[in-house]
Amino acid sequence: MTSRVPATVAYMGPQGTFSHLAARSLFQDRPALEAPTIAEVVDLVGRGEAELGVVPIENSTEGSVSATLDALLDGALFICGELVLDVSLCLVAKTADRSRYRRVASHPQPLAQCRKFLARELPGVPLFPTASTAAAAREAALDDTTAAVTSRLAAELEQLTIVADGIQDHPENATRFAVIGHADAAPTGNDKTTLVFSTPHERGALRRVLEIFDDAAINLTRIESRPARGKRWEYVFVTDIEGHRHDPNVAQALARLENEGGGVRVLGSYPQAKK
Amino acid sequence: MTSRVPATVAYMGPQGTFSHLAARSLFQDRPALEAPTIAEVVDLVGRGEAELGVVPIENSTEGSVSATLDALLDGALFICGELVLDVSLCLVAKTADRSRYRRVASHPQPLAQCRKFLARELPGVPLFPTASTAAAAREAALDDTTAAVTSRLAAELEQLTIVADGIQDHPENATRFAVIGHADAAPTGNDKTTLVFSTPHERGALRRVLEIFDDAAINLTRIESRPARGKRWEYVFVTDIEGHRHDPNVAQALARLENEGGGVRVLGSYPQAKK
Repeated sequence: MTSRVPATVAYMGPQGTFSHLAARSLFQDRPALEAPTIAEVVDLVGRGEAELGVVPIENSTEGSVSATLDALLDGALFICGELVLDVSLCLVAKTADRSRYRRVASHPQPLAQCRKFLARELPGVPLFPTASTAAAAREAALDDTTAAVTSRLAAELEQLTIVADGIQDHPENATRFAVIGHADAAPTGNDKTTLVFSTPHERGALRRVLEIFDDAAINLTRIESRPARGKRWEYVFVTDIEGHRHDPNVAQALARLENEGGGVRVLGSYPQAKK
Repeated sequence: MTSRVPATVAYMGPQGTFSHLAARSLFQDRPALEAPTIAEVVDLVGRGEAELGVVPIENSTEGSVSATLDALLDGALFICGELVLDVSLCLVAKTADRSRYRRVASHPQPLAQCRKFLARELPGVPLFPTASTAAAAREAALDDTTAAVTSRLAAELEQLTIVADGIQDHPENATRFAVIGHADAAPTGNDKTTLVFSTPHERGALRRVLEIFDDAAINLTRIESRPARGKRWEYVFVTDIEGHRHDPNVAQALARLENEGGGVRVLGSYPQAKK
């Protein structure tokens, strides 16, 4: 009898980040590896030290969307799944006595996401930027005059008091995570494809690409231009489309896109997350 | 005789960030105000405590592009200028003896930008994520077993030794900064306009918008879809186009865009930075 070793999952730590929460919610009891940056997560999967990685890809509270795209463009990995995580920010501290707080720690992005709350509830308390929401919880655990804006998970890991929950100014706050691995997913009939394309450097080039998708009855769900590596002020486009790269209309559109001459690379097809 | 008080400029600190470098390069000797986050920079200008603000807007080493857009979309300010800054990352420490380094500190994004260099030159030395490149320099100044990836300015401010310069894996590394204020700039004949538009939620809507720009002979230099505030998985598009909003072809295209029914907001017209 052989015992199968469960797949290892890599995520960007420290423990208690929203990436950690996403990894736990996708792969409950599998062994997890923590890495200090998104690029390291991608490297761990690339070297086979983890079978899969979980990285934030859109609207992240960890300021990491471009880091994820850069790492995926540099490597040879595929996106094989996605997860949409509701991000609820908590104000936490060792003590619930707000008059004790001398600073509020968090990553700059969550600090920005709840600045109306902070201006109203903790007026005049200085902000203290940290590298992650989990690092902010760590600061609060070490010093009872520091409050942190962080996840419920980080508060629990650091045994902090949750002073207020759901403090973000815009209640609808979600982060999309990608699961990355050495292959993408098989078609399910309800899929999404992430791809990167460049266009010839001439006016109307992007419009012609959108016509290709339109003609094939393909919906775009995201488009983003990004500076091309090593070519200053030339751009590539990162796009999410509905459908799997093996669906006939998508396959045909991708073939037409390649013929346009700009270059296209599929980062993966995978089942659409529930919204 | 009256002495005119020079305008105050706000930037995201701490001192030595690339934002600080950009503010110095644009407004040499004007009084400068440091704020802990991009949102605070925007607030300082909004409340009139600073006349202008300098915020990173594209390809930032400070992970802040979305924070800048969110803050601009929330407020009533305009972009009135831009600056393109060459970003050269340095490895710095109190000592040039690399065998002493027990960790390398920096913001996750610059750590990712020079990870090939770090893997080659400092193999096995753990990465330590910080809130900014300037915070990393601070760590190195406090502890001689910590090296930092940071700017030359931060190294000088903290009196650290520059061990290696230009260590980023892709030599072409630039960040675009926006100058923000209560009005945008007058036409110069070589301008750019940043705008945000939404489209009706139907296939082909973006293609129709691009046709409007195309018909008016307007070049797009950037496009990015972003989640609309408060409307989960609806998107707005942030776009840079060539031309000033008072140029006749741009003014006409903007009017046509408004008639499309999705909504458009001009964040400002300003002279194009030299490339």
